[in-house]
Amino acid sequence: MKYSQLLGKTKKTAPKDETSLNAQLLIRGGFIQKEMAGVYAFLPLGKRVLDKIIQVIREEMNAIGGQELLLGSLQNPEVWQKTDRWSDEAVDVWFRTALSNGTELGLAHTHEEPLTQLLTHYISSYKDLPVYPYQFQTKFRNELRARSGLLRTREFVMKDLYSFNTDETGLEKFYKEAQAAYHKVFNRLGIGDSTYLTFASGGAFSKYSHEFQTVCEGGEDTVYLNREKGIAINKEVYTDEVIADLGLKKDELEEVRAIEVGNIFKLKTRFSEPLGLLYTDENGEQKPVVMGSYGIGPGRCMATVVELSHDEKGIVWPEEIAPYKVHLVGLNLEDVGVGKKAQEVYDSLAVGGIEVLFDDRTDVSAGQKFADADLVGCPYRVVVSAKTSDEFEVKKRNEEKLEHISMEKLLSVLG
Amino acid sequence: MKYSQLLGKTKKTAPKDETSLNAQLLIRGGFIQKEMAGVYAFLPLGKRVLDKIIQVIREEMNAIGGQELLLGSLQNPEVWQKTDRWSDEAVDVWFRTALSNGTELGLAHTHEEPLTQLLTHYISSYKDLPVYPYQFQTKFRNELRARSGLLRTREFVMKDLYSFNTDETGLEKFYKEAQAAYHKVFNRLGIGDSTYLTFASGGAFSKYSHEFQTVCEGGEDTVYLNREKGIAINKEVYTDEVIADLGLKKDELEEVRAIEVGNIFKLKTRFSEPLGLLYTDENGEQKPVVMGSYGIGPGRCMATVVELSHDEKGIVWPEEIAPYKVHLVGLNLEDVGVGKKAQEVYDSLAVGGIEVLFDDRTDVSAGQKFADADLVGCPYRVVVSAKTSDEFEVKKRNEEKLEHISMEKLLSVLG
Repeated sequence: MKYSQLLGKTKKTAPKDETSLNAQLLIRGGFIQKEMAGVYAFLPLGKRVLDKIIQVIREEMNAIGGQELLLGSLQNPEVWQKTDRWSDEAVDVWFRTALSNGTELGLAHTHEEPLTQLLTHYISSYKDLPVYPYQFQTKFRNELRARSGLLRTREFVMKDLYSFNTDETGLEKFYKEAQAAYHKVFNRLGIGDSTYLTFASGGAFSKYSHEFQTVCEGGEDTVYLNREKGIAINKEVYTDEVIADLGLKKDELEEVRAIEVGNIFKLKTRFSEPLGLLYTDENGEQKPVVMGSYGIGPGRCMATVVELSHDEKGIVWPEEIAPYKVHLVGLNLEDVGVGKKAQEVYDSLAVGGIEVLFDDRTDVSAGQKFADADLVGCPYRVVVSAKTSDEFEVKKRNEEKLEHISMEKLLSVLG
Repeated sequence: MKYSQLLGKTKKTAPKDETSLNAQLLIRGGFIQKEMAGVYAFLPLGKRVLDKIIQVIREEMNAIGGQELLLGSLQNPEVWQKTDRWSDEAVDVWFRTALSNGTELGLAHTHEEPLTQLLTHYISSYKDLPVYPYQFQTKFRNELRARSGLLRTREFVMKDLYSFNTDETGLEKFYKEAQAAYHKVFNRLGIGDSTYLTFASGGAFSKYSHEFQTVCEGGEDTVYLNREKGIAINKEVYTDEVIADLGLKKDELEEVRAIEVGNIFKLKTRFSEPLGLLYTDENGEQKPVVMGSYGIGPGRCMATVVELSHDEKGIVWPEEIAPYKVHLVGLNLEDVGVGKKAQEVYDSLAVGGIEVLFDDRTDVSAGQKFADADLVGCPYRVVVSAKTSDEFEVKKRNEEKLEHISMEKLLSVLG
């Protein structure tokens, strides 16, 4: 991609009402823009990062038997009334709407109900189980206050997977597999080292649910962390009883701010019973399906990466989710020879299957180009200029060292 | 994918209230399921087809300079009031909702307004133009009656691209390129031969807009077609004046039913003026940006393919958008040797990068498996059974001929 043609260039400053670091850097870098409070547009650079995060999650969900589908956003109240989650008293984030004839509808803030309802068409026997459907779908949540950039929005893409098993043994087994898959996801996103399995409220049906909390100053949550054991307790269940139950000691726990990047719940029969999702077992007996749910917000992950991985100059993207691997900075391009050389490098990298953002602007200073490359945060910066002979200046975003290497070596380093 | 594990198996019958052919076949085949009137879930098979259609469109939009982004669904009335499209009198398909504090919001049925508004942050000079952003995003339309399966729903993914040029010459040039790209898309989806550029109402600012109408019995629209010249006129502008203007003659035009699979509009300054999307030209003069819009509904395309490409046994998917290339039917799998052989074929095809749906069920008759393969409609059916020695029975979905070929030949035919 040529930077001169890219929609969404860098900005010197972020709007004053954006107080979170992730929104400031992502807006300045040309990744996102606010449409209104709690609603952000993903510009081409931001869409690339979001898609890469989604692809990482998709691969790990497929690896544990996930099957991708896509449900609707518009919700039929009847289905939610059966589980007592339609009223504002039960759920305080509903966006409500209506058909032209006045029939009330909702906008989905989660999908347990419609998916459970859908599966009544497909599950009737133990032979139809287990099944692990998931989706990347827009959720709408009528938050009282949208805040913290992409961390708390009113509309966001969420990966939600739901497990359907014959019994709790199956649920427990899959729940462990999902935990492991979640750790893999966060490792690949570059936030694994700071992300901890966290015990949280299990609601009426389970002792605990589990969150994945990324330790970070910009986080909204408070958790009590045992770094050595790699687990944490959410403030909401931080009691002497729970600490003892988990075999932890108060003085080994550190109070930290954190961002909830994922959460997993054992739902058991909370939804299958009221919605009649039953199966017939080997002995001909009818039983309710045993469920779990597993969420990750790709946009929130993107914000978390930015909160954790940046310096005073800008974002430092982990390679797997960077918008482009290489930021090719062309200087002195008004010189025909240099322009030609830069275009050759751009083409060679493209032919080598390397993703390149080529700053081909001729009306911008070298300093501005370097500053923009640092702000945008691609892992490698390659410079072509009048000084370039057969070697190119290469610098990693997270290192100071400059190297001068040949085209051949460049391709092997980046390939 | 093993069919025994697939979520969304075939059904003998479709619900009685589904009168359209596309909904009947897609529901029976396990591609979609109705959640409520006008809202369909895409099951794993349907999601695969939808994704492939989206990928075809994405490639062709990128090829003409499109840049993918993603806007929000929640809409700020203020933006739409500026263009006089907020009221129900102006637009009769709004879904309306509200924040907890009572502030009214809308759900996007199209995105001219928010995108034009967004671009005021990024366009100020002629150097920032042209730009061609597009997205695949959920649209909400409060249709009085949802009908015809996926052809008229209340919620659907749409590809909408918008062109932003300095002047009408730029718009005209891109408009032609988009037309050509649309023809490529419909060719790749297998409906190109039946899809015609159709002259429709241009609204207040252009003489005509253009639709892409696919001739089909199940269509909602009536168009007047000149097959030889490859163009048509929508009934809404079918007057003597228009016929003459297009150099056509009434007796060369055939009245046919058709499905509108795409539409393109010259918007000119209809949105840029009221929303203040201006740029400074080479002479320092401020001018409004000149716009166009270009829509395709991937779900509607999916329905159109089914309406056009099926027989009495089921769907006949074009290869590029089939859920899987090969439907591998395993018979006599209770025989350990045959089971092993079938698994080997499945693995070999997978290693060869060929997408395979493997009917590995042991509790279903051969007849049922063949019927399901025909209903699901993958391009190639391969049979492994007790009769299989070193050759496998291969049949194309749209041919009667059976061939017996070796594994090696199979890989080269399918690869």
